[in-house]
Amino acid sequence: MPSAVRAPAHTSTVSRPRGRPPRAHAGRGHTRAALIRCGTELLTEKGFHGTGVDALLKRLGIPKGSFYHYFASKEEFGLAVIDDYAAYFARKLDRLLGDAGRSPLARLRAFVAEGKAGMLRYRFRRGCLVGTLGQEVSGRDDPFRKRLDQVFADWQGRVAACLEEAKVAGELAAAADAQRLAAFFWIGWEGAILRAKLTRSTAPLDLFADTFFDSLPR
Amino acid sequence: MPSAVRAPAHTSTVSRPRGRPPRAHAGRGHTRAALIRCGTELLTEKGFHGTGVDALLKRLGIPKGSFYHYFASKEEFGLAVIDDYAAYFARKLDRLLGDAGRSPLARLRAFVAEGKAGMLRYRFRRGCLVGTLGQEVSGRDDPFRKRLDQVFADWQGRVAACLEEAKVAGELAAAADAQRLAAFFWIGWEGAILRAKLTRSTAPLDLFADTFFDSLPR
Repeated sequence: MPSAVRAPAHTSTVSRPRGRPPRAHAGRGHTRAALIRCGTELLTEKGFHGTGVDALLKRLGIPKGSFYHYFASKEEFGLAVIDDYAAYFARKLDRLLGDAGRSPLARLRAFVAEGKAGMLRYRFRRGCLVGTLGQEVSGRDDPFRKRLDQVFADWQGRVAACLEEAKVAGELAAAADAQRLAAFFWIGWEGAILRAKLTRSTAPLDLFADTFFDSLPR
Repeated sequence: MPSAVRAPAHTSTVSRPRGRPPRAHAGRGHTRAALIRCGTELLTEKGFHGTGVDALLKRLGIPKGSFYHYFASKEEFGLAVIDDYAAYFARKLDRLLGDAGRSPLARLRAFVAEGKAGMLRYRFRRGCLVGTLGQEVSGRDDPFRKRLDQVFADWQGRVAACLEEAKVAGELAAAADAQRLAAFFWIGWEGAILRAKLTRSTAPLDLFADTFFDSLPR
């Protein structure tokens, strides 16, 4: 994705865990949500291989048994974190790209601005969970690969819909290929997030976004 | 970087190791080079955190002591792999972007074509070492961050020089900002490599490159 992480894990639908309640969050039914939230932070900062289950549990004061009550494996946990992040991000895109108070292209620019602000807020330590985990994908049977690919396809579809609206609003040439432009946007945006982490600067995000918007056919 | 890895580790300057010679490569003085070569493959496929020193040594049949004879730590090893890859890649860029038999923009297109071929050859398991390790950078004092940033700056400078030649050749508008276009190229190319790994397809590489070349000011 796009930038700094803030994944408000969904707590309301969590079923009551069996067995001994964890030390932290005991009786609040928030253990799974806390694991997802903390896991999102750690996986975004350190990646899947760089994140240890033990470190996660220590940070939360949760015993190992509770983790395996909720998740059969670290891999299943990682997939749950991706799903939670994807749901959070879909809501974010709906909010920004569905904002009728702005023109379609202004909405996309607002997304870029929020991404920049997020990178600054977390001092370039966190980029995009999906981009970070995507770099770790390598094996043929990696269960993350298809899921991450689906998430990008979903984001791409949302941006393409926004670009279609830009055509109707007269901000984008009617002949423009919205799907292709949306794919180009996500390719470049993920590359810009990577570079911003390395340079510890928002300059790559500005450079990519300015060039993207300038090059759109009117 | 740009794409499939092929890092011919430099062997000629390797000093003779003290201590017991490793099982494999004994007496050939190639131990360090073999470590770098195998490390490049593993780090490109699995990243820094996903690569274990034990797995590396097992694959090569080299005892642990030999590894620590050459490298004080896994981190020092990682930096050596980056340096080797950067040197390999600089030679590759020199070869492709300095090819007087082609126009400057045709040279850059040849680089794209070679990157695509590399991604196919390794079945999208390997992308760019620098991009992969770059995603893992997070901490303030990460020793990899500055080095990886320098490598990108070097590649960017080489592409900018090629674009300056494109101006002289009349392929690019004289008023174009070669440095900015080169930065844009690397941002998008790294994003395209990431996406190509996820989709297991060269389509993202084509989409980015075609859009990039089409948008260049003439």
